Amino acid sequence: MKILVVGSIAYDSVETPEGKRESQLGGSASYFSVAASHFTEVGMVGVVGNDFSEDDLALYRSHEIDTSGIETVDGKTFRWTGDYLQDINTAVTHETQLNVFADFSPELSEKHAEAPFLFLANIEPSLQLQVLESMSSRPKLVACDTMNLWIDIARGPLAELISKVDVLTINEGEARQFTEEQHLPTAAAALLESGPSTVVIKRGEYGAALFSKHFNFAAPAYPLAKVVDPTGAGDSFAGGFMGYIAATGDTTEEGLRRGAIVGSTMASFAVEAFGLDRLRSLSRQNIEERFNAFVDLTRFQAIDGSNALPLR
Amino acid sequence: MKILVVGSIAYDSVETPEGKRESQLGGSASYFSVAASHFTEVGMVGVVGNDFSEDDLALYRSHEIDTSGIETVDGKTFRWTGDYLQDINTAVTHETQLNVFADFSPELSEKHAEAPFLFLANIEPSLQLQVLESMSSRPKLVACDTMNLWIDIARGPLAELISKVDVLTINEGEARQFTEEQHLPTAAAALLESGPSTVVIKRGEYGAALFSKHFNFAAPAYPLAKVVDPTGAGDSFAGGFMGYIAATGDTTEEGLRRGAIVGSTMASFAVEAFGLDRLRSLSRQNIEERFNAFVDLTRFQAIDGSNALPLR
Repeated sequence: MKILVVGSIAYDSVETPEGKRESQLGGSASYFSVAASHFTEVGMVGVVGNDFSEDDLALYRSHEIDTSGIETVDGKTFRWTGDYLQDINTAVTHETQLNVFADFSPELSEKHAEAPFLFLANIEPSLQLQVLESMSSRPKLVACDTMNLWIDIARGPLAELISKVDVLTINEGEARQFTEEQHLPTAAAALLESGPSTVVIKRGEYGAALFSKHFNFAAPAYPLAKVVDPTGAGDSFAGGFMGYIAATGDTTEEGLRRGAIVGSTMASFAVEAFGLDRLRSLSRQNIEERFNAFVDLTRFQAIDGSNALPLR
Repeated sequence: MKILVVGSIAYDSVETPEGKRESQLGGSASYFSVAASHFTEVGMVGVVGNDFSEDDLALYRSHEIDTSGIETVDGKTFRWTGDYLQDINTAVTHETQLNVFADFSPELSEKHAEAPFLFLANIEPSLQLQVLESMSSRPKLVACDTMNLWIDIARGPLAELISKVDVLTINEGEARQFTEEQHLPTAAAALLESGPSTVVIKRGEYGAALFSKHFNFAAPAYPLAKVVDPTGAGDSFAGGFMGYIAATGDTTEEGLRRGAIVGSTMASFAVEAFGLDRLRSLSRQNIEERFNAFVDLTRFQAIDGSNALPLR
C-alpha cells in the first residue's frame, strides 16, 4: 500500500442548480481514495456506522482500495446536508450529524503504519497529529488538509500539525484567515515559514497555486461548461496530486508541478457529476485526455533563440 | 504607427494600503499606450484640458507615442478619485469629474484612420463605434474594453460594438452581467456567439482567461508580494497583449496565447507602483525576465513517450 488516508466517510445530501441527491457516498477520505486509486494503491482509515452499505464498501474495493482500516461501529455514519444553490462555489450547510464520527479515534494496523505516503484529510487536528505519531517511521511525504472550523476552535493543534507536514493543502480564504495576511503570496510565505516545504492554495474555479521556498506554480481550473456538484473537489485534487507523486515516487519540483496538474484533472472530473459518479467511472484514456487538455490550456511559446519578444 | 488607441486620459487621485497620490497621470489610454509602447508605435486619441501638464505629454513622447491625436480644449482634464482600502481588487469611487471628457468626440487624422491595429479603450460605446466607423479600412485586428456602466445604460450600442470587434476584453463580473450567465465558460460562449472571435476575461488577481471558438488559454496573474496600485492593470494587460500582436503581426492562436502572457507581464508591472511609475521605467531585460517568470510559473511536463502518467 502506497498511500494511507485518514479522513471522513460520509453520506451527503446535496442540492445544486443541477439537481438533488439524498445520502450519496462522500466524505474527504472517499473522494481522495477514489481519485488516488487511478494511480496507486490506497488504504483508508475511517469509521462508519452499521447503516453503511455493502455496495459502498464494494465500490472502494472495486478500485483496489484497502478498506481494512474502515471501522464499523454501532450507530449511524457521518451525515452532511447542504446546498450550492446561491453560489456554485460555496456550500451552505444545513445540517452536520457527526454520529459515529464523534468518537472516532483512528488506530493504525502495522501495515498501515508503514505507508510511505500519508494524507491527513480534514478532521480534527489532534486526530491528524495522533495518526502522524502512530506511523512506524516518518513517511516519505505527509500532506494535510484542514478547514476554517479548526482555525477557529483548534488553532494550537492545527499549528503544531502544520509544523510537521511536508505539504499543506488549504483554501484561499482559510490561508488568509490562518495567517491574517490578505495578500496570497504573503499568506503562503507565512505558511511556508511555519513548517511545510510546499503549500497548495486551493482557489476553486480559479484553480490552485503551489508555493514552495524554491518555486511557485499556477494550475488553472479546467473551464467546464457545467459544474454539477462541487462537493469533494479539493479532496479529489489532493487524491490526484498525492496519487501521482506516490505512484512515481517523484517528490521533486517536477513531480509536484505535474502532480498539481493531475490533481486539477481529478478535481475537474469530480465536479462533473454528483458525488463519486464521475471519478468512479474514469478510464485511463479519460484521464490522459483531460491532462492533455491542461497542457493545451496553459501552453505558450517561451523565449528562445528564434523567438525573442519584439521589444523596442 | 501600428496601434491606434482611443480612450481616457485622466488625473487620478488614489489611495491604497501602500499610500496616497494626488492627481497622478492615468486613464485607460495612458496605461494602454505606455504598456504597448515597449513593443511598437502607438498613437493616442483623446482629450485633455488646458491644465494638462507638458511633463505628462513629454512622458508619452519619451515612449515614442504619437500624441498628435490628443486634443487640448478649454477646461479641466478628466479626474477620478478613489481608493482600494477595503479590498485591493476593488476600487471605491469617490468622485468622477468628466470635465472636458463630457463633450469628447474623437476625430481621426488620415494617418490615424489607417492604423492596422485598433484598441477601443473603455469609453461610451457610441464613441467607440464612431471611431471604428472612422477608420479608412477595417484594421487587421480591433479590440475593445468596456465597463459595467455601459452595460447598464448603453446596452444597445455596446452590443453593436461587440458584434464588430475581433477581441473583447471584459472583467469577469461584467461578462456575467452582460450575458446573465453565472458560469464563466458559458458566459464566454455567449459573448463569442455575439461577435468577437476572441474574448479575454480579466480576473484581477486570478489572471486572465482567453476564450475563442477553437481554443481556451489560461494566463495566471504573477504572484506579487505587494500590490501598490491596481489602477490601470486591465489596460496595461491590453497594451501588452495588443503591443505584442501588433509588433509581430501574429494574430494566430500562438500569437494570442503569447500576447496574453505579455499582457499579464505588463499588468504585473503596472500594479507594482503608483500610476505609470513602473511601466514607464521598464527595461527590455525587466520585461524578458518577468515573461520568463511566467514560463516558470506555468510549466510542467506533458505526456510523451518516456513520460506517461502512471495510470493503473
